[in-house]
Amino acid sequence: MANNDADGMGAGVEWPRGFRGYAGHAGVRQSGNDLSIIASERPAVSAAVFTRSRFAGPSVVLSRRHAADQRMSAIVTVASNANVATGAEGERNAAELAALVGDLLEIPAERVLVSSTGVIGRQLPMAPLRAHLGGGGAGGAHRDGPAATVAGAEDFDADPLAVAGAMMTTDTHAKVSSRTVGEARVVGVAKGVGMIEPDMATMLAYLVTDAEVGPIELDNALRSAVDRTFNCLSVDTDTSTSDTVALLANGAAGPVDADAFAEAVHAVCLDLTEQLARDGEGATKLLRVVVQGAASPAQAKRIAKSVLNSPLVKTAVHGADPNWGRVVMAVGKNTEHEEDLAITPERTTVRFGAMEVYPTATGEEELARLVEIMRQDEVEIGVTLGLGEGAATVYGCDLSDGYVRINADYTT
Amino acid sequence: MANNDADGMGAGVEWPRGFRGYAGHAGVRQSGNDLSIIASERPAVSAAVFTRSRFAGPSVVLSRRHAADQRMSAIVTVASNANVATGAEGERNAAELAALVGDLLEIPAERVLVSSTGVIGRQLPMAPLRAHLGGGGAGGAHRDGPAATVAGAEDFDADPLAVAGAMMTTDTHAKVSSRTVGEARVVGVAKGVGMIEPDMATMLAYLVTDAEVGPIELDNALRSAVDRTFNCLSVDTDTSTSDTVALLANGAAGPVDADAFAEAVHAVCLDLTEQLARDGEGATKLLRVVVQGAASPAQAKRIAKSVLNSPLVKTAVHGADPNWGRVVMAVGKNTEHEEDLAITPERTTVRFGAMEVYPTATGEEELARLVEIMRQDEVEIGVTLGLGEGAATVYGCDLSDGYVRINADYTT
Repeated sequence: MANNDADGMGAGVEWPRGFRGYAGHAGVRQSGNDLSIIASERPAVSAAVFTRSRFAGPSVVLSRRHAADQRMSAIVTVASNANVATGAEGERNAAELAALVGDLLEIPAERVLVSSTGVIGRQLPMAPLRAHLGGGGAGGAHRDGPAATVAGAEDFDADPLAVAGAMMTTDTHAKVSSRTVGEARVVGVAKGVGMIEPDMATMLAYLVTDAEVGPIELDNALRSAVDRTFNCLSVDTDTSTSDTVALLANGAAGPVDADAFAEAVHAVCLDLTEQLARDGEGATKLLRVVVQGAASPAQAKRIAKSVLNSPLVKTAVHGADPNWGRVVMAVGKNTEHEEDLAITPERTTVRFGAMEVYPTATGEEELARLVEIMRQDEVEIGVTLGLGEGAATVYGCDLSDGYVRINADYTT
Repeated sequence: MANNDADGMGAGVEWPRGFRGYAGHAGVRQSGNDLSIIASERPAVSAAVFTRSRFAGPSVVLSRRHAADQRMSAIVTVASNANVATGAEGERNAAELAALVGDLLEIPAERVLVSSTGVIGRQLPMAPLRAHLGGGGAGGAHRDGPAATVAGAEDFDADPLAVAGAMMTTDTHAKVSSRTVGEARVVGVAKGVGMIEPDMATMLAYLVTDAEVGPIELDNALRSAVDRTFNCLSVDTDTSTSDTVALLANGAAGPVDADAFAEAVHAVCLDLTEQLARDGEGATKLLRVVVQGAASPAQAKRIAKSVLNSPLVKTAVHGADPNWGRVVMAVGKNTEHEEDLAITPERTTVRFGAMEVYPTATGEEELARLVEIMRQDEVEIGVTLGLGEGAATVYGCDLSDGYVRINADYTT
């Protein structure tokens, strides 16, 4: 069963057998590690899902191609430049990055997932990246870049927390999660705090395991988990051009029970999802919205997202303002889908935590209790629609002036 | 033609012939006018559109019924209580309010549009409203309410600016607009700064005219104008439970040219829409997004709204951060509709004002020019998709820490 390391904050978490990590400063940003690699020492099977954005960047386009035969065994991440809206030059740069990492690890470039995250519309600074990664061949001959370079296996000494740290942009802390399943482990790292309403995946989340799992089983475990976790996450309704979730399995620990494995993958994804929500740009709280009694699972998720994404609900949660009327507003505004026209004030109930606020009358005393509930650092809003059996849970955060401050002045 | 009073700020604007206004303090809120009435002295024809929210309040439900035969000649607005999610008691209160105003004006209650705006989930304070409106009969006998009451025609001395002022909640100024058409005039008042992404209408906007117009023509003129103005407005993606737009015509000025009339109605609606956008909660700028070359008008509006509503675009506009990549992100994230899958980076262009930012390369000098463009108090973002002839323009505002401050602490 999957239940250890449940605090999930990453200190002391080691890679599963046969995986290693690299984190370094290549000079993409002025200071701090900005280049990381996760690599399996043996061939691995892989599963991956990517953003569906029509403006997916060249790194995503390339990686989607590399992911097709499920044989990726390394992941390289450049932080603070997204390599998006960069045209043909961006495509060449993504391909060169895969080749540089492939040469370094002595694997084909097609085995490398390339990802980049940060500002959109700027070309990757290839000179320092090239130098840092050994000059385009094995051996570490560097030219005009910074002195630090990665020369070989001995530099792969970064633990998951260090790799997650090198992936961060405006994240305030690194996100790591780990679960045990039989003799094997599932370890995940993730980044992402803004531009977060994943469509097929979240910004960047990478899971590795030493369990021995076939490609179909691996793909099913990942997609099923992503659907109920990262795809139920929204910080600000903005879907990134770079969303990627990948899971590599190198089999070093031998076979494990399939259900327990799927459960461990789900647990790591859920843990990372809640860590991402809680660290949303400017966020001070985790906001969870649970919709039940919907006509369909799709309706449940749509209504839940509508409440989760309402800036008026999010600001009320931020200020612990007991203005529950905004929740019924956010439920009621859904009128595009036929099945939503069956929603009525008479059948609907709304709760905060365990306290029903609608249709129960709310006097001064109840509002004071509601303020207390809303002051917690986790707020759960429950809505029942009385229409059927559809249910969904989604994850987000409050909206603070911090979000505005971070995003009004990001590139300049 | 419709072109005078174009500054639109409302000082000195008078009602069209045969209309009068009332604005008073009935005690719904602690201070300031909170009750207003617009009334025609003669029978009028009317057209109205209402929110499609599934949680439309009793005032909206009642008014929708009153609007059906297009004979409304008076509009009463209570500010600071929405009368929403208030059940059977809320229904009785809305009906009593219509009856009180009908008695006062000596018209049937069915001729009165009742609207209320403000906090959701509280019952209207009927005792002071009853007292203020003359105790449930003509004549002004008041019981337990405040001393001030409206007793008859002599109290109807409020001009459009005063009525618009009494409708405000978190608005920072009253919104009035006026246009002349032949011998007649079209005057509009509006309120609304948050919970603004109208579905069929905006929060509250009322237009009156002394033009002689038939009910069908009136309805067409209003719906056509609303579609291109209020329904293209979004402050925060949250659709109010109280949205109402109504147009009353009392014919006092005789007939006018139909096209010129429709144009005047459109001009007043557009002027009010831009005033509402500019006064969005916490807003410092008007943001206009123009999409052209879409596969359909619906796609154009969807993509335009996606850019307009992106919190990352809105915060960048707030801070004049030349982070144009967020616009391509907001275009690219649309993947739910089949026709959006035809959007490609290769066919798309993006401009700010007259300056193309994508795909044109943007060096330091261009970014500095872009900052200047974004520092204006009106920012227009243009997107062409290269797919067809569909076009749309939508109206909104930047997202500031002011929005958060206003909404984190609204009821308490």
